[in-house]
Amino acid sequence: MSDWTLRLTKSLHQARSQPESRYFQLATLTEDLVPANRTVVFRYLDNVDNALVVVADTRSAKWSELSLQPKASVCWYFSKSREQYRFIVHGEGYTRETAPELIDKQWSKLSDAGRKQYFWGQPGSVKQSNGPLRVTEDMSHPPEHFCVLKLLIKSVDYLSLQGNPQYREKHWLDSSGKWVSQPIIP
Amino acid sequence: MSDWTLRLTKSLHQARSQPESRYFQLATLTEDLVPANRTVVFRYLDNVDNALVVVADTRSAKWSELSLQPKASVCWYFSKSREQYRFIVHGEGYTRETAPELIDKQWSKLSDAGRKQYFWGQPGSVKQSNGPLRVTEDMSHPPEHFCVLKLLIKSVDYLSLQGNPQYREKHWLDSSGKWVSQPIIP
Repeated sequence: MSDWTLRLTKSLHQARSQPESRYFQLATLTEDLVPANRTVVFRYLDNVDNALVVVADTRSAKWSELSLQPKASVCWYFSKSREQYRFIVHGEGYTRETAPELIDKQWSKLSDAGRKQYFWGQPGSVKQSNGPLRVTEDMSHPPEHFCVLKLLIKSVDYLSLQGNPQYREKHWLDSSGKWVSQPIIP
Repeated sequence: MSDWTLRLTKSLHQARSQPESRYFQLATLTEDLVPANRTVVFRYLDNVDNALVVVADTRSAKWSELSLQPKASVCWYFSKSREQYRFIVHGEGYTRETAPELIDKQWSKLSDAGRKQYFWGQPGSVKQSNGPLRVTEDMSHPPEHFCVLKLLIKSVDYLSLQGNPQYREKHWLDSSGKWVSQPIIP
């Protein structure tokens, strides 16, 4: 495992009782060339692909935005340890067609409340009625639009605010595919 | 004040003892057309300009990125009330030359530790020595590169995760400059 993977694992452990260990902010590019930013729920760290894994909906904006520009940016701030990770990522999308096992496994891990979100209708579209959104579908199998996003980490900009001065370090892959790092001015 | 301003004021009040009431994530566009995402410290809400105000360094990437593409995206998640605000903003930068009063006022509000950050050297450049970053400059006046960013809010995508189903609502300015809103599918 790389230096930053070990450090992130430690940050996650220290933050295990804090809500921010469960989500981070993902910025993608819209077709109007404006960044879009939202909180997404962290599922797991894939140590083989060096990827942050999240689940999503192929009808959501982030899916189409990552199809147009796979390069995106993740910001993960841990308030207790006062550490920030900024990741440049490459988003890869998986559906039932391309990765049935991955899809089934991630679906099986969702709670009922988590599954219901996939049956409320087209995300971002106008809500037609004032009534509650009801779900009557069978939720034992994932719908076609349920997908998994692997955010493959290409570089890391790490900042620790614990000391004064702060500590900041860049990590990136060299030409031989090895992780290297360099302290930089915060 | 608009509906969403009142709601944000309430969210900030409910989160007043939580660290996340003091910062949010700002995504800008790099010249390579990749989003960049980082945590910034919230200074205040400018109710006249409908703007989130932060302080920054003109030598930082966010300053040059906002000069090229002023449209940016803010994500602010409040973990206690489980509310998310996604703002499309237009970034406006102010320096000592263009807004001396605003600059002086914001500088005067910074702690010594906050001021020191502006004297460590070019942010993001290679740290040349292993020694600590020392500051010997007079910090009573702001350096030329100290700046203020007003993030003028153009639209709001509000999400509340408290209920099931969740509640999501869009707010934007109509052609007459009035705020309007519409519930949408989460």
